[in-house]
Amino acid sequence: MVEPFDVVDLIKVKRDRGSLSTPQIDWLIDAYTRGYVADEQMSAMTMAIFLNGMGRNEIRDLTMAMIASGERLDFSGLSKRTTDKHSTGGVGDKITLPLAPLVASFGVAVPQLSGRGLGHTGGTLDKLESIPGWRADLTNDEFMAQLESVGAVISAAGSGLAPADGKLYALRDITGTVEAIPLIASSIMSKKIAEGTGALVLDVKFGSGAFMQDPARARELAETMVALGQDAGVAIRALLTNMNVPLGLAIGNANEVRESVEVLAGGGPADVVELTVALAREMLELAGVDEDPAPALRDGRAMDTWRAMIRAQGGDPDATLPTPRETEVVRADRDGVVVELQALPFGIAAWRLGAGRARKQDPVLHGAGIDLHVKPGAVVRAGDPLFTLGADDPARFARAHEALEGAYRIGDAGETVQDGGPLIAARIG
Amino acid sequence: MVEPFDVVDLIKVKRDRGSLSTPQIDWLIDAYTRGYVADEQMSAMTMAIFLNGMGRNEIRDLTMAMIASGERLDFSGLSKRTTDKHSTGGVGDKITLPLAPLVASFGVAVPQLSGRGLGHTGGTLDKLESIPGWRADLTNDEFMAQLESVGAVISAAGSGLAPADGKLYALRDITGTVEAIPLIASSIMSKKIAEGTGALVLDVKFGSGAFMQDPARARELAETMVALGQDAGVAIRALLTNMNVPLGLAIGNANEVRESVEVLAGGGPADVVELTVALAREMLELAGVDEDPAPALRDGRAMDTWRAMIRAQGGDPDATLPTPRETEVVRADRDGVVVELQALPFGIAAWRLGAGRARKQDPVLHGAGIDLHVKPGAVVRAGDPLFTLGADDPARFARAHEALEGAYRIGDAGETVQDGGPLIAARIG
Repeated sequence: MVEPFDVVDLIKVKRDRGSLSTPQIDWLIDAYTRGYVADEQMSAMTMAIFLNGMGRNEIRDLTMAMIASGERLDFSGLSKRTTDKHSTGGVGDKITLPLAPLVASFGVAVPQLSGRGLGHTGGTLDKLESIPGWRADLTNDEFMAQLESVGAVISAAGSGLAPADGKLYALRDITGTVEAIPLIASSIMSKKIAEGTGALVLDVKFGSGAFMQDPARARELAETMVALGQDAGVAIRALLTNMNVPLGLAIGNANEVRESVEVLAGGGPADVVELTVALAREMLELAGVDEDPAPALRDGRAMDTWRAMIRAQGGDPDATLPTPRETEVVRADRDGVVVELQALPFGIAAWRLGAGRARKQDPVLHGAGIDLHVKPGAVVRAGDPLFTLGADDPARFARAHEALEGAYRIGDAGETVQDGGPLIAARIG
Repeated sequence: MVEPFDVVDLIKVKRDRGSLSTPQIDWLIDAYTRGYVADEQMSAMTMAIFLNGMGRNEIRDLTMAMIASGERLDFSGLSKRTTDKHSTGGVGDKITLPLAPLVASFGVAVPQLSGRGLGHTGGTLDKLESIPGWRADLTNDEFMAQLESVGAVISAAGSGLAPADGKLYALRDITGTVEAIPLIASSIMSKKIAEGTGALVLDVKFGSGAFMQDPARARELAETMVALGQDAGVAIRALLTNMNVPLGLAIGNANEVRESVEVLAGGGPADVVELTVALAREMLELAGVDEDPAPALRDGRAMDTWRAMIRAQGGDPDATLPTPRETEVVRADRDGVVVELQALPFGIAAWRLGAGRARKQDPVLHGAGIDLHVKPGAVVRAGDPLFTLGADDPARFARAHEALEGAYRIGDAGETVQDGGPLIAARIG
């Protein structure tokens, strides 16, 4: 290949707080994708980016170069407008499950390319795979046909979209450079823009159970991604949402599907309903639909679309979902008020029970997880159930308890209750 | 192997401006040497070190860990004290050639493990290999025997000393992290301490032809290395020396040997003599010898040791040295004063003529190089020779001229002459 730049020179530019030009970034990403720039060179570059940052133009160029490294989907043949959502992930975050069919029930196409979980953050595909028969790997034709007929599709992202991002993400993971805003923003947005959606709503979480714990940093990430979307001509908006407390009452896989079905049936925990409706409203508005989504949860329209979506992908919406072989109920040891219940340790505990994986190749145990019976503010009496742990192997309970040490606390009436503030803290874009 | 640390955690410590502990650094270097920590992880770490620095304890720990990665030489069986010298390298820097026999002629052992050149900085072994028959690769027994009998040895450093440094240096070279003081200091000092010398004098250069151009940074490097030596129980001192103008009049290989022999015969350029004598004085003092080295250059003692040293390594001190097939004399185009003559471009020009190598595997053309006929301050008339280029292939002259564009200038009498200041700017330790 032509070699217009020397990668060591480019590393030094970033190392010395300079800016990389568009042709330099284009060359870098292309050369890295082809294996011409070595992993060790790219990891020095990403550490320099981590520590010295990137300007808005550089982040845009990086995103565009990653898109150019692979294929792009094209929804222009569809009779419907497309609208998409991305969440930065949190504990108990099953929102995609009720949200995609809810929005699709308004005649909009929701092409939701999702991933599997790693660590304490669950994966949407892992949750749906609790449903007997359901499959994530659709062909391109199946994907398009289902978008046209059902409107909602949740499937695995092919490796053809932004392959440079896949390679770079794996590298960042082992070199301590995951949490850099320019790299996170370009990673998420390159896949979303390559996916070809016309509208995109971002759920950017902050708090103890979020990837980006600090609200100011979460806002910076949201603003960076919104700017990227605007530069690429995508109708885009972000909600900054609170992830100090688990979302809903179910943390796991099958139990999160169960909770999602409750929401689609017009019930379910208030916080899950609130966030689902808020995100649906934004997605519809960006797609040009000026309707209130809330009634569709109560009148069965969203549920119908859910059932059609699950069936179209081989799943049986009426099948019995997996349950854990063993359960253990944790009870209040005193009368009082639940003053604290931290998202992160509950996420880690569910992961250790088997709901998540430590390595990519590990299986997920679909029945494992945690069901909460209380949330902060609940008044309890000694002996009341606080939460139930579920696992196939009871040896896992001890490891979950370790993670939960200090994660929840029952205090006296009148004591300050853990207050994450409002669920939706800001709206950006 | 035992895995007491997670390398990603250690990278994050340095990334977030923390300090690594002694066991963390020991583990890191051991794991890297064994291939358990990957190159891409180490390059993220070195970029973090480059940008966030290291404290004195960390630099000491890094140096000690690199020493521990390989073997150590042991000179305790010798009947003589050992004293060594290291130069950070410059244009026309052939000082090791006259210096080692000069110091050895006082009954002190000088074990000089040297390298080959890369880029515009020449290598001591390349220069000596101009001498027919001379060989750099001695066995350990030959090395010790020559130290005992002749006193001076200049040979190739074996790969057994600080192998972690060799691996790390190759990585830094391709990832833009060469110029970090903690990494340079630990790289140099790990090899020198592993070599087992009792005394060490450092020639740390600054100026346009030096690796570390800024005098303040060169001083910081010198102070860091002196501290490392003191911590390791080595008698150590550093001279900060000026490298704005080439050292001496010869830049190349065979011509630098010729100039060194002139110095050993009591002649030679004043700057080469000054630096040789100053470094010899420090080396002798640190070895407990309170004598003036200068007379040994005039009375033949140093020359005798040189001849014995060359012969002991298979070389013929009386052999004719290689000369270039083609030469080109560059002459003054006007009357005036040489007001500028920059080291770096002359180093690059000599390299392009064939005196240096661009890649490790390239050969060096021993006859190629540049002979200066003037230095800054010289009064010249139009047509006077300024310098002579020498190469085997005349096509190389054009590339040398490119490098020399703007590198020298003849001005009017009274104009300020390029003043690098005194040759020896400071003495540290």
